[in-house]
Amino acid sequence: MDVGVWPAASGLREVPLFDGLDPRTRARLEAISETVAVSPRTELFRQGETPTALHFLLQGQAILSGTAPDGSQAVIEVLTPGAAFVVASVLVDQAYLMSASTVTSARVLKLRAAPLRALIRTEPQIAFALMGMLARNYRSMTRQVRDLKLRTATQRLACYLISLVTDREAKSARLRLPFHKALLAGRLGCRQDSLSRAFAVLRDLGVETSGATIMVNDVPRLRAYAMPDELAEEAA
Amino acid sequence: MDVGVWPAASGLREVPLFDGLDPRTRARLEAISETVAVSPRTELFRQGETPTALHFLLQGQAILSGTAPDGSQAVIEVLTPGAAFVVASVLVDQAYLMSASTVTSARVLKLRAAPLRALIRTEPQIAFALMGMLARNYRSMTRQVRDLKLRTATQRLACYLISLVTDREAKSARLRLPFHKALLAGRLGCRQDSLSRAFAVLRDLGVETSGATIMVNDVPRLRAYAMPDELAEEAA
Repeated sequence: MDVGVWPAASGLREVPLFDGLDPRTRARLEAISETVAVSPRTELFRQGETPTALHFLLQGQAILSGTAPDGSQAVIEVLTPGAAFVVASVLVDQAYLMSASTVTSARVLKLRAAPLRALIRTEPQIAFALMGMLARNYRSMTRQVRDLKLRTATQRLACYLISLVTDREAKSARLRLPFHKALLAGRLGCRQDSLSRAFAVLRDLGVETSGATIMVNDVPRLRAYAMPDELAEEAA
Repeated sequence: MDVGVWPAASGLREVPLFDGLDPRTRARLEAISETVAVSPRTELFRQGETPTALHFLLQGQAILSGTAPDGSQAVIEVLTPGAAFVVASVLVDQAYLMSASTVTSARVLKLRAAPLRALIRTEPQIAFALMGMLARNYRSMTRQVRDLKLRTATQRLACYLISLVTDREAKSARLRLPFHKALLAGRLGCRQDSLSRAFAVLRDLGVETSGATIMVNDVPRLRAYAMPDELAEEAA
């Protein structure tokens, strides 16, 4: 999967999680890291495998997906730069519950798993940084479970669109979906035909789509329909 | 909510997570803990509140639930003794994303949140114990997301029943549901009428119900239908 290797330091610098590390601790991480370039649609690891590295996405887009025993697949999470790939499995040294693959060309930082677990035991700064990321991952997964149990697919889509409106005072907004509709359907936990129906319902609320571009003509009305949680909007 | 207070040491001893602590570290935890008795159907904390303590369930049954802005509620997790209530929110000192309440009479260990976060910074043993629990919580939530996206309600029920069969060689099994059917429906992410329909479908596969007692007449057949993940059966 690797089509090129950069000096490790270039990658570590791009992960905000490690911003606060002192130089000595950072050097220890650098010693167990490498930065690699990965082609589009390339598998980084597979559900059931034991982690050999903690991966961070530096550039590009990647997904975590689950596979049922009958082979059907679902997108669980779409990752954007700065995110780690399943810290939990690396920390407890147990099989991944999800597979990871790139969507686009990507750059990925890899920290070797066994020496990373050893470093956590001697470097509290690294332990705290990863613990914080793990806690945020847990909260993000909790929101998904809550939304899957409490909201319809159309409400989940409306909430998602509202989350893309950066100007909280906006009356209307022109959005660009950050990933294609098949990924969006997976992330929202519905089939693509349900996503199309959800977009059709939202058309009556002033949401127009044209490819990856979405025009929200009446943001307050969509927000009133979506009823996004205050909590979902906190910095995650 | 508290109807009695025991000496703290009695509670700490009952949490397997803390089994390996040395006496000095354990004493530090004891100094910030108390054990309380809680009545049935009593709220321990509410979604949106900032954590004041990390709670562990020692005896009884409790649930974590989410509330939508329209007031509808869903059970996210059913807790059994030994489990902590949402370690993540306590560690990052952010508002709970779920509410917690008892189902039955319960005994609960409370570790005060602020001094616990301080202890984590000076006592690596405590940090590692909580990090491990947080990672297991994350994996459990991941399984829920995966099952909600990949399995029907009937398949989720079948997987759940198979998980209650302790003898892996059993041809048939008599099970007792550990909690009532309204909680089970919430945990499986379906309405109670969907749960009833799911039980009706499983009747054709030899699953008979009588109140909280379930007779599985053909375990291999139910397992073949449920296709439980190997992964879901690992010690979580």
